[in-house]
Amino acid sequence: MEMQEHRRWMARCIELARKGAGSVSPNPMVGSVIVRNGELIGNGYHERYGEPHAEVNAIRSVGDPELLKDATLYVNLEPCSHYGKTPPCSDLIVRMGIPRVVVGCLDPHEKVAGKGIARMRAAGIDVVTGVMEAESMELNEAFIKSHTLQQPFVTLKIAQTLDGRTAVASGESRWITSEESRREVHRLRAVTDAVLTTSRTAIADNAALTVRLCEGRNPMRVVLDRRLSLSPDHALCGAEASTLIVTSHAMLGTPRAAVFKDKGVMLEGVGLAGAGLDVRQVFSMLHDRYSVLSVMVECGGVLAGELVRQRLVDRLLCFIAPKLFGGDGLPSFGALGVTSPGDAVGLNFSEPRMFGPDLCVEGRFVWGDQA
Amino acid sequence: MEMQEHRRWMARCIELARKGAGSVSPNPMVGSVIVRNGELIGNGYHERYGEPHAEVNAIRSVGDPELLKDATLYVNLEPCSHYGKTPPCSDLIVRMGIPRVVVGCLDPHEKVAGKGIARMRAAGIDVVTGVMEAESMELNEAFIKSHTLQQPFVTLKIAQTLDGRTAVASGESRWITSEESRREVHRLRAVTDAVLTTSRTAIADNAALTVRLCEGRNPMRVVLDRRLSLSPDHALCGAEASTLIVTSHAMLGTPRAAVFKDKGVMLEGVGLAGAGLDVRQVFSMLHDRYSVLSVMVECGGVLAGELVRQRLVDRLLCFIAPKLFGGDGLPSFGALGVTSPGDAVGLNFSEPRMFGPDLCVEGRFVWGDQA
Repeated sequence: MEMQEHRRWMARCIELARKGAGSVSPNPMVGSVIVRNGELIGNGYHERYGEPHAEVNAIRSVGDPELLKDATLYVNLEPCSHYGKTPPCSDLIVRMGIPRVVVGCLDPHEKVAGKGIARMRAAGIDVVTGVMEAESMELNEAFIKSHTLQQPFVTLKIAQTLDGRTAVASGESRWITSEESRREVHRLRAVTDAVLTTSRTAIADNAALTVRLCEGRNPMRVVLDRRLSLSPDHALCGAEASTLIVTSHAMLGTPRAAVFKDKGVMLEGVGLAGAGLDVRQVFSMLHDRYSVLSVMVECGGVLAGELVRQRLVDRLLCFIAPKLFGGDGLPSFGALGVTSPGDAVGLNFSEPRMFGPDLCVEGRFVWGDQA
Repeated sequence: MEMQEHRRWMARCIELARKGAGSVSPNPMVGSVIVRNGELIGNGYHERYGEPHAEVNAIRSVGDPELLKDATLYVNLEPCSHYGKTPPCSDLIVRMGIPRVVVGCLDPHEKVAGKGIARMRAAGIDVVTGVMEAESMELNEAFIKSHTLQQPFVTLKIAQTLDGRTAVASGESRWITSEESRREVHRLRAVTDAVLTTSRTAIADNAALTVRLCEGRNPMRVVLDRRLSLSPDHALCGAEASTLIVTSHAMLGTPRAAVFKDKGVMLEGVGLAGAGLDVRQVFSMLHDRYSVLSVMVECGGVLAGELVRQRLVDRLLCFIAPKLFGGDGLPSFGALGVTSPGDAVGLNFSEPRMFGPDLCVEGRFVWGDQA
């Protein structure tokens, strides 16, 4: 019974936390509720990067601070124990005399990582951990991965026909999926730190990769362009959102590079690997230099294949249009080096969703011995 | 309110009718309930080919025939008006003095086609038609198509990876999908008149195409084998189910053909079209000579592509395993002659289902100007 109550309030924390999607990165999404005698007396969430944490907002929302001395605070992520942009939340909780705290999952941030819970327990607070832990971890999977592996969480978005084609033989591909699917992609862009594409796909589609079909801020746009073949007049270089072109070190000092810089487009150089840019380096650079925790890749089959071969993708979002292009169409994934059915790249599907006439399949990659 | 009542009882008829799946073909699936003062007083369904029709079973199930004089009979398909294996049901309804009949959809059978309803109306019965008409037609879509177009209803079953591959580059393919998906395929076989494959797929998979993972009778097995390359010892030639090999006219008189006939395997010859057997002729032959109303095709990308190019498929059942084989795997459909995205072969998806880890997508082909 008690655990059922805990889960109910934690679900409310997660719901509140989601309201911060797109506004709090590189911070995690956190929601908090305060409950006394089975009744909600306060709630809050982390609304914007640099502004107060969820616990602070929840505590402030309680009219009479005396009530806190007999209340339980729920929060989906371990309260912090360090001075960042704001003072430590665990200290505030201790100071306010809150006797019990229920936590969804631990904060992997090296400066927290259990210290927040230890701090509260040392002060005599009854701390319950691991309530809706899986859901809490999934909510902040990008934050957790980036602090654990120093790499962003990578979502690969594909729009294909049922027979796995992104274009007909000639390469023509625009508008495979429906307006409803495209709106969902815009919604996803609005809660992702960066969208990444290749100059090849950018030139073929002339897509701006901005958020237009729904409310929300634009993500940073990242274009892999080894030879700077993109036109400075391309939709991706428009001023409505920031753009980073990643090219080879050799191209950085060229006059061509200067034209992009003059337009306000950022440039970075990375090393080469195989036939193109070293994609693993690209992700590390985005993490280390731009605090990018989450990347959505919108690309064709060549890069999609490369990402899968190098095991650089965490999640696949596959929008499937109710169409067939046939075996001479362009494949959604290049060759993956799979030589026997038992060596197939594995996924776990979530329950599929429909967007208008299209199907959307979400899958988590199963990498076996992932580092 | 009255229409809601009608729909409720018609849904019950359809549910009863489905119990005849796999046992009544080439007859349609029919269920019937008899209602008096809002209460069910009788019900029945067509249980087996050659045995009494649903209406007869429903009427017989009513204890006191006097009650019928104040009752409503519901039936998902128009009662018959001709002498077949049993006397006409519309005559029986008139004779029993049933004052009202509610019908799901008309019977397209040339000997009925509205005559059953006309017969009852002429006798003064109040006949309501078109209640749950779409659901009633979908239930008997194979029966309706075969009587309308003289061709069986064709379902194409594919088992593929998310990226549209049925095998890795070497051709290896067995067990792409899970036990749960395979059980569903066996269930589908048990309610289909015939399963059809090619000798190429049969040799690669060594599949018996029988019903083993669930209860049910075996469908007739049909193998397209232009050059009689199948071994007479192949699992498909086993005696547990009937088998028909379709080959070229030229092969029919050969000693090779005689070996199959000696084993009890049936043979038919059809003409050639393009690189192989004329598939349209195969379907017509199955309809005309074997009373096959429904065919499930289980094949590789070559025949799948051919069937789609010739617009010979009504329904696609695509089992998608949570795997990727990559762009060098064998495609689930051969080239379809689609040169621009706007010319894609179109489908309408139904709500997807999960079978264990796999996804099953059902789609109806949209043929535009279908003959």
